[in-house]
Amino acid sequence: VPLDATHHPDRQSWVTSANALESEFPIQNLPFGVFRRLGSAESPRVGVAIGECVFDIAVAARLAPQRFTGEAVGTAVAACAHDALNALMALGREPARKLRAAIADALDASDADAEGELAAALVPMTDVKLLLPAHIGDYTDFYASVYHATNVGSMFRPDNALLPNYKYVPIGYHGRASSMVPTDTPVQRPVGQRKGPNDLEPTVGPSRSLDYECEVGVFIGRGNTLGDTIPLTDAEQHMFGLCLVNDWSARDVQAWEYQPLGPFLAKNFATTLSPWVVTMDALEPFRAPAFSRPDGDPAPLPYLSTPENEARGGVNITLEVRLQSSAMRARGEPPEPVSRTSFTHMYWTLAQLVTHHAMGGCNLRAGDLLASGTVSGPTKGERGCMLELTWRGAEPLTLPGGETRAFLEDGDVVELAAWCEAPGARRIGFGTARGVVLAAASS
Amino acid sequence: VPLDATHHPDRQSWVTSANALESEFPIQNLPFGVFRRLGSAESPRVGVAIGECVFDIAVAARLAPQRFTGEAVGTAVAACAHDALNALMALGREPARKLRAAIADALDASDADAEGELAAALVPMTDVKLLLPAHIGDYTDFYASVYHATNVGSMFRPDNALLPNYKYVPIGYHGRASSMVPTDTPVQRPVGQRKGPNDLEPTVGPSRSLDYECEVGVFIGRGNTLGDTIPLTDAEQHMFGLCLVNDWSARDVQAWEYQPLGPFLAKNFATTLSPWVVTMDALEPFRAPAFSRPDGDPAPLPYLSTPENEARGGVNITLEVRLQSSAMRARGEPPEPVSRTSFTHMYWTLAQLVTHHAMGGCNLRAGDLLASGTVSGPTKGERGCMLELTWRGAEPLTLPGGETRAFLEDGDVVELAAWCEAPGARRIGFGTARGVVLAAASS
Repeated sequence: VPLDATHHPDRQSWVTSANALESEFPIQNLPFGVFRRLGSAESPRVGVAIGECVFDIAVAARLAPQRFTGEAVGTAVAACAHDALNALMALGREPARKLRAAIADALDASDADAEGELAAALVPMTDVKLLLPAHIGDYTDFYASVYHATNVGSMFRPDNALLPNYKYVPIGYHGRASSMVPTDTPVQRPVGQRKGPNDLEPTVGPSRSLDYECEVGVFIGRGNTLGDTIPLTDAEQHMFGLCLVNDWSARDVQAWEYQPLGPFLAKNFATTLSPWVVTMDALEPFRAPAFSRPDGDPAPLPYLSTPENEARGGVNITLEVRLQSSAMRARGEPPEPVSRTSFTHMYWTLAQLVTHHAMGGCNLRAGDLLASGTVSGPTKGERGCMLELTWRGAEPLTLPGGETRAFLEDGDVVELAAWCEAPGARRIGFGTARGVVLAAASS
Repeated sequence: VPLDATHHPDRQSWVTSANALESEFPIQNLPFGVFRRLGSAESPRVGVAIGECVFDIAVAARLAPQRFTGEAVGTAVAACAHDALNALMALGREPARKLRAAIADALDASDADAEGELAAALVPMTDVKLLLPAHIGDYTDFYASVYHATNVGSMFRPDNALLPNYKYVPIGYHGRASSMVPTDTPVQRPVGQRKGPNDLEPTVGPSRSLDYECEVGVFIGRGNTLGDTIPLTDAEQHMFGLCLVNDWSARDVQAWEYQPLGPFLAKNFATTLSPWVVTMDALEPFRAPAFSRPDGDPAPLPYLSTPENEARGGVNITLEVRLQSSAMRARGEPPEPVSRTSFTHMYWTLAQLVTHHAMGGCNLRAGDLLASGTVSGPTKGERGCMLELTWRGAEPLTLPGGETRAFLEDGDVVELAAWCEAPGARRIGFGTARGVVLAAASS
């Protein structure tokens, strides 16, 4: 896939905040999202992030219709006149790609008329609340990091850490859609049943081992009909774009409830999404080979294997988790990075997850979210959840100021961040998925 | 809870087909559903079943507004002007209860004017297609029959049949909402990964052990806010009504994929619902004590225990599964009953499932569906899936004409039916959840 003008690293915008080197949202990114102006009673609106602003697509198309011409762009603009991205996603890759290119042209610094025509379509990010990007019909969570699966397995099943199916089946399960929340939604510590190995009976109370999981989510664009499959060669055409997912987890609840049907209340109290959907088009310069399976691992089964997927099924995203205790916040200290890893460590590519999900005919719908599972790498500093980082609490983290953490405490803020860098490409970012832990409801 | 006029067993309707003793939909039932007139391009409409007809609520309220007065009934009628029951469900129990009572009065044989005023609101069932009753935001499947859990466990984990959490935790998992289909939707045999105990590697192909599961589903009425719980004393107020659920399952796919995160592709290719939602109000005469735990079982934890739930948390529903091969169909033979059981065998009540689901703050929304899990009883003839009935194929079923079945074959029709009977009450039925198995897609 050739890179095009939208990826050119030297391109600048007349929205000057986008040109700052540290900006996550330069003109080369233009992720889609949904927002509402603070204090307004208006319906949610569709926009793209540019520097420190949101570019309101419907307003822009009204102010300068001549910049949004052509059938595909017109269809895409019309699909943005909703309170969520589902309609745009449902159109498939091409209309969104062309709309993104038209927006890039409209925001380009070299266009002398653009700022005058379009400045009124910009809203400062400080003036908006960012919402969930889509109405998520179904949310699926995978388990695609072999490092995560091995670490967790060795804690929960010491004799049987990595199960025999792992290298054949992209393991996944259905998650809860209703409790997906946008960034900056506080997360209440759940109450649940817990039973330690030495307890005679379970007890009920607030989770004592609340955790985060740092994941990447892919929003489905064009769906498939019930009964149809999505061959691996087509899977990328069904992927609209990516976001960050914090799959908050109550480990004590999980350990007691998860057999034989998987996690349930341990996960369904909240899942936090980052607000911006970075399109697969924006990610083109950062594609990478699929995971290189070590000698002795089986090859992927034929339906999960193409040369194209092997050559560039991966995405080189750097992911960082940051923690901030309430004491740190009181002292004015920023969230502290506690791990950093790469999405190239994943055993399965996103395209393999999409293809596997539909192999039995399950219909994926526009706006469905498939999350990767915790992104962990081979070294300790690359572990994407506290369960792994602290080895179930045995090796607590130390925060600035000397506080220690086995698991999350009330008042802790968890912030996921991510960015992509590559030689010859402008760095782009994902924004953050952030939430503060609130005390459990009193019972 | 006192029975009221809507339950009186001698009440008759001017819709005379409702008065036939074998009718599932007498005036004492009046289940809600969603339909579209065959051949019409209209939006789906909300109605109730009466005898062999559907009573179109919006049309009735237009023809005879004086019969649908009062604030609660007016609100309920307005909520029926949608393409699904979600808005009516969201109002909670009282408006739907009053609307059902008003409809019963309007359909009562003793009202000399009613037929003249309202006959035009009736549509013969043969002239409609019945659709899903609601937009199901989230579907959860439980595992609430201890007989089913024990049978399945002894096949999949001979040394460890019933896991230690079973009698404390109402085990459940999130299912797939997108592939829920209304009755009479054909079900395509899924392709998946299967691996027998003696296979060196998994293979990909059509499931060789396709199964049904006979379950009861409860539609959530009024929801709860994220972070709030639903105490057991309130749980029934969040339950709108019940339907039948066939949780089609590919057992070979399930056995290979389900560890450690639960069933995924084994279940998400199709789930069939019966079309009519029998309200909790219509079920009042059939309430029964909760399961009587044998000596030695732990008492339910306090959050899952009230005297009221113990006394009448159960529902006495008889469930029947019928099979019809294509050869039987060609010979004009009806589906053959292969098992019959009672919903009173369930270890957990529906109210306990609702309360457990929300105990960590998970938000349930109007129209969400919670299914019970396979309803199996203590004897062989009461087993609610083929895995149990044939003991994983070891004891095949024999159908009329001599065909045998270890699992489902292409062309087989599975039909779930259910009814309630009690002394002093009119018998009511659920209608059917039916589907024919189609051959796998050629690959």
